Amino acid sequence: MTPRHLLTIEPLTAEAFRPFGDVIEASASGRHYRINAGYAERFHDLARIDTAQAGGRPLLNIFRAVPRALPLQLSEVERHLLGSQAFMPLTPMRFLVVVAPAGPAPRVDRLRCFMAAPGQGVNYARGTWHHPLIALDAGGDFLVIDRGGPEAAGDCEALPLTAPEVWVEA
Amino acid sequence: MTPRHLLTIEPLTAEAFRPFGDVIEASASGRHYRINAGYAERFHDLARIDTAQAGGRPLLNIFRAVPRALPLQLSEVERHLLGSQAFMPLTPMRFLVVVAPAGPAPRVDRLRCFMAAPGQGVNYARGTWHHPLIALDAGGDFLVIDRGGPEAAGDCEALPLTAPEVWVEA
Repeated sequence: MTPRHLLTIEPLTAEAFRPFGDVIEASASGRHYRINAGYAERFHDLARIDTAQAGGRPLLNIFRAVPRALPLQLSEVERHLLGSQAFMPLTPMRFLVVVAPAGPAPRVDRLRCFMAAPGQGVNYARGTWHHPLIALDAGGDFLVIDRGGPEAAGDCEALPLTAPEVWVEA
Repeated sequence: MTPRHLLTIEPLTAEAFRPFGDVIEASASGRHYRINAGYAERFHDLARIDTAQAGGRPLLNIFRAVPRALPLQLSEVERHLLGSQAFMPLTPMRFLVVVAPAGPAPRVDRLRCFMAAPGQGVNYARGTWHHPLIALDAGGDFLVIDRGGPEAAGDCEALPLTAPEVWVEA
C-alpha cells in the first residue's frame, strides 16, 4: 500500500502565511481610512503584486472553480518563478491553500495547509510552491491577479505529489 | 431653483463601456479555457491594469462601501491621470458607474450612467472621469486595483457637480 501523508488544516492568518505571501482581507490591524466623503473605507495596499520581472505585466482574470469535497488527495504543487499570483473569491466561500516555501522542490513534510475563511484571499509570493485552486462549499468565481510575459514557455513549474500520497481530511 | 440634469441608467456592456475602460466579467465571448485538470475555467486578461506610469506600481485594496439609495444627487467626478482603477464586488451586488471620457472637464451632458449587474466589475482607463463608488443593494466590499506612486501630491483630480445639479433616479 502506498504510504500516505496527511496534512493538518490550519486557520489562515497573516502572520502564519507571511513566509508564503499575503492574506488579502479587510483587517482593522492594517492601514485603513475613510474616503469618498465617508461612503467608503479603504483598506490599503493589501498584497505585493510582483509581476514586472522579465518584461511582465499584471493580468486580471476570473477563475471559475468547481468545488472539491474532503477527504481529498492532492495532485501537485506548482510555482511561478517570475511572478506573484493573487486569489480572491467573488462570493463568500472557503477554500484550501496548500503551500511550501520558495526554493528547491519541497519534501511533503514542508507542506502547509490553510483554510481561507469567507472574506479572505491570498497572494502567493513569487516562487512559493502551491497546489492548484481548491474551492470548497459551492465553488464559484475568484478574481485572480497574476503575471503575463513575453516568454514562450510560460512560467509554471509543476511537481506531482505521488509518493507518498498527500491527503487532506475534513 | 437650481436646474437639474437627470441621468439615464444604461445596462453595462463591454461594448458600451469601451470608451471608458473594461467590464470585468466571466464572459463566454472572451478568451477562456480549462485549467487545473478541469477543476477551473480561466477567463483570461479581462482588464488593462495600467499602473506603471511615473514610477507607479499596482496596489490591491479593499473598499468597504456604504449602500446608497435612489434618487441620488451626484457629488463630483474625479480622474487619475497616471493610472487605471478597477472595482470588483466581493459579493453579488449592483453598483452604479458614472463616467465621462478622458479629456477636458466634461459637460454634464457627456456623463453616462451604467448599472453594473451582480458578477460585473469595471476598470476605469487612465484619465476616465468617474464618480466615486456608488454601491447599491446591501453595499459591501470591493476589490480595487489602482496605482501607487512616488509623487507627493497624489493622483486624483476632482470636479464638483454643482450647477446644474446631477441626479440619478430609480
